[in-house]
Amino acid sequence: MSRLLLNCDIGESFGNWTMGLDAEVMPFIDCANVACGFHAGDPSIMRKTVSLALKHGVQIGAHPAYQDLQGFGRRSMAYTPQEIQDLLHYQIGALDGICRAQGGRVSYVKPHGAMYNDMMANPVQLRAVIQAVAAYGELPLMLLATRDNSAAQALGDEYGVTLWFEAFADRAYDSQGHLVSRQLPGAVHHDSEIIVQQALTISRGENLTASDGSPLILQADTLCVHGDNASSVAAVQRIREALKPA
Amino acid sequence: MSRLLLNCDIGESFGNWTMGLDAEVMPFIDCANVACGFHAGDPSIMRKTVSLALKHGVQIGAHPAYQDLQGFGRRSMAYTPQEIQDLLHYQIGALDGICRAQGGRVSYVKPHGAMYNDMMANPVQLRAVIQAVAAYGELPLMLLATRDNSAAQALGDEYGVTLWFEAFADRAYDSQGHLVSRQLPGAVHHDSEIIVQQALTISRGENLTASDGSPLILQADTLCVHGDNASSVAAVQRIREALKPA
Amino acid sequence: MSRLLLNCDIGESFGNWTMGLDAEVMPFIDCANVACGFHAGDPSIMRKTVSLALKHGVQIGAHPAYQDLQGFGRRSMAYTPQEIQDLLHYQIGALDGICRAQGGRVSYVKPHGAMYNDMMANPVQLRAVIQAVAAYGELPLMLLATRDNSAAQALGDEYGVTLWFEAFADRAYDSQGHLVSRQLPGAVHHDSEIIVQQALTISRGENLTASDGSPLILQADTLCVHGDNASSVAAVQRIREALKPA
Amino acid sequence: MSRLLLNCDIGESFGNWTMGLDAEVMPFIDCANVACGFHAGDPSIMRKTVSLALKHGVQIGAHPAYQDLQGFGRRSMAYTPQEIQDLLHYQIGALDGICRAQGGRVSYVKPHGAMYNDMMANPVQLRAVIQAVAAYGELPLMLLATRDNSAAQALGDEYGVTLWFEAFADRAYDSQGHLVSRQLPGAVHHDSEIIVQQALTISRGENLTASDGSPLILQADTLCVHGDNASSVAAVQRIREALKPA
Repeated sequence: MSRLLLNCDIGESFGNWTMGLDAEVMPFIDCANVACGFHAGDPSIMRKTVSLALKHGVQIGAHPAYQDLQGFGRRSMAYTPQEIQDLLHYQIGALDGICRAQGGRVSYVKPHGAMYNDMMANPVQLRAVIQAVAAYGELPLMLLATRDNSAAQALGDEYGVTLWFEAFADRAYDSQGHLVSRQLPGAVHHDSEIIVQQALTISRGENLTASDGSPLILQADTLCVHGDNASSVAAVQRIREALKPA
Repeated sequence: MSRLLLNCDIGESFGNWTMGLDAEVMPFIDCANVACGFHAGDPSIMRKTVSLALKHGVQIGAHPAYQDLQGFGRRSMAYTPQEIQDLLHYQIGALDGICRAQGGRVSYVKPHGAMYNDMMANPVQLRAVIQAVAAYGELPLMLLATRDNSAAQALGDEYGVTLWFEAFADRAYDSQGHLVSRQLPGAVHHDSEIIVQQALTISRGENLTASDGSPLILQADTLCVHGDNASSVAAVQRIREALKPA
Repeated sequence: MSRLLLNCDIGESFGNWTMGLDAEVMPFIDCANVACGFHAGDPSIMRKTVSLALKHGVQIGAHPAYQDLQGFGRRSMAYTPQEIQDLLHYQIGALDGICRAQGGRVSYVKPHGAMYNDMMANPVQLRAVIQAVAAYGELPLMLLATRDNSAAQALGDEYGVTLWFEAFADRAYDSQGHLVSRQLPGAVHHDSEIIVQQALTISRGENLTASDGSPLILQADTLCVHGDNASSVAAVQRIREALKPA
Repeated sequence: MSRLLLNCDIGESFGNWTMGLDAEVMPFIDCANVACGFHAGDPSIMRKTVSLALKHGVQIGAHPAYQDLQGFGRRSMAYTPQEIQDLLHYQIGALDGICRAQGGRVSYVKPHGAMYNDMMANPVQLRAVIQAVAAYGELPLMLLATRDNSAAQALGDEYGVTLWFEAFADRAYDSQGHLVSRQLPGAVHHDSEIIVQQALTISRGENLTASDGSPLILQADTLCVHGDNASSVAAVQRIREALKPA
């Protein structure tokens, strides 16, 4: 990838409950992380989401999660590495089935919520995820870019899995390139000028300023954006404009 | 298919709960109808089930169901035709994902329980199922053989879906070739001699005797057998022997 | 009850998904039909909902449903009468547990969605619901007022269950006092003048005009209102004003 | 309580899946820890279980769990203390509703699986559980007896909750009175002589021998026994005989 892809969590409605402005944000993104039924997104929601992504030529990513609808997949759960792999194969396949019926295919995998956080915090779990993606075959895995991606990259290489590192334009980073906890002040940027500027900085491979003031360069392939509400969609649109090749 | 394939519902355990003698019956069957998580069969159970089927060279069929774990998919639910299709794509895909991770593939589709019964009773729903299978691509659909398969066959032809008609060796039939309700006396054969004999009769394309005494010929591609307990496994083994080419 | 109570479905959020303007409508209603977890309303949502009802002195009703989160309890399911009773006892008890922890109690029962519709269409199921409510003890049951409530009343009397008949201010009725199907034109009133007028007519025990032009009197104890959006909340507020004792 | 009550996990079937010899073990126990639907035990199973307990005059305890059917409630999940309380009120209430319909009542609470382990390992969670039980009102809480029960007892006293400490006859203890992990050799006793002997030792308040050889006295109100299979039921029967007052 020569440019920074914009990825966004999509399809997080469920049954009669609606979440996110999927139709509004879809025109501005490259990659849709589609919920697969375990934290959001029932089969009918998934069909509509896939249809929308295909219409806009957006790549469809599986966004698998722990099985926890009430907790929206955000609560850590003590799965074994084998169970993690089973969860992944089931959910990637389910979304792939929905895609096939419309002439599409899953293009990549990005774990959701606690499964994502646990994978970044625990090398045993990261290995399980990479093994699962390798066994499914040919899909890249999206994960968090940090100051030093080499350990993750080594695991990806071991299993022949392409890694897409993602960065955030609206989050503060600490000196190790980890996201500053949402519990702390300044963790989330709300000023759209700052958000667009951080997107550009990451896109150019230039130095960000970490929360302790130190310079930080993130090697990122993709930028995570949000379609939760009108203001975040507007920010995505501005980022899209700003990142356009001259 | 030139001979009568033996198909069996498999993988109906869930979490800590065990059901069926899967390992015992697998060596004697041709086609395993694998539960896909909505009535039974969580992702880890599905992995173990697929592994067992692959080891024995048994074809893996998706056995999708209504989403009703407590009712084991046996309670009719008022899904729309579109929702039925979504359920099918999700569950076929999920099992296909589990298979892919082990180098296998789903080979056919057989709806479970109330989804199966409703499909046989309601042409609108049968059309939805056939459309769903057609859209997924290339998989045969297993359904009930009756006295006259022509209406179902016409629907299959319309969508280019191969149909595998199944018969039962342990169930009584009425004159139309429908299964006699389990509520009625004599609906289920328990004598293994009778079961094996009925299997042979169906296999040879000869006349069965319907519940009203009339002759009945079923055009069947496959025979549904059961691995619930030691006695049904023994019956499968006897049927397997009896159906062996001379 | 000497006046028309206003009842409203409440607590239909789930996990991270929000539905309905509960806080906005609560000040104007008498009875909150609280979702019990099977079609909406997880334990934490239920706690918040009960807390809100208690703060406003609103009676708390159990709003039990079929177990179908994706379908929001609106799909008919083939439960046995015994299973219906078990569903009811479980869900009424669950809400009662949430209430107890805050010093409240469940005050009545109103089945939701398909469970409600099936109960009104099928006397066997209505009996099961009434038996269940009787066995739980001392709670009134809310159900649909029609032209002739006598069959339901006889069942209620048989089991010693108080019935609260409910009418709708925003729905057209046929000559039997059944709601006109939402599929038909004119089934739902959108003009708030008409809605308030119908509420007053029902409240005074005067004649409504059924869809075939015939006069219709509904003997109702309560009026079902809606807190879905700002416009329906405004209608509730107007009805509340209009029904005030002079 | 002047004697050692026998408590047993009961009602752990779900839908079509059967687990445990409930009918066989019920005659020999004092307290049935009844699954409440989140790890096992749907509403119909709960009704049957309560009916069986009432028939044998066995006390009915709520056995609430994390919401994880596939994991049987044995996987730790990152619930907040408030969510834990909501889970408890919902499940205790649900079982109480099932009991009420049969003229019974929940008599005590014993958390299940990971909720139990996390409560014993984490004082914040133990406090949440005790607060929840206190708010529900009047029910004792069953928890693990260790060498020193004083910290738990202080929490119970703070909220006015009676604690019933339980011990195990078939498990080895370490010197602190914690159960030796099942991963370690010798953690579980299989010899029924040893099991009955340990039950008697605990009953008499005499010294056990901890895994490091040190003496250990457990102050226990109740003994946890198992109805999983014929051999564990036989052990319960022998313990029952051995503990009979002379």
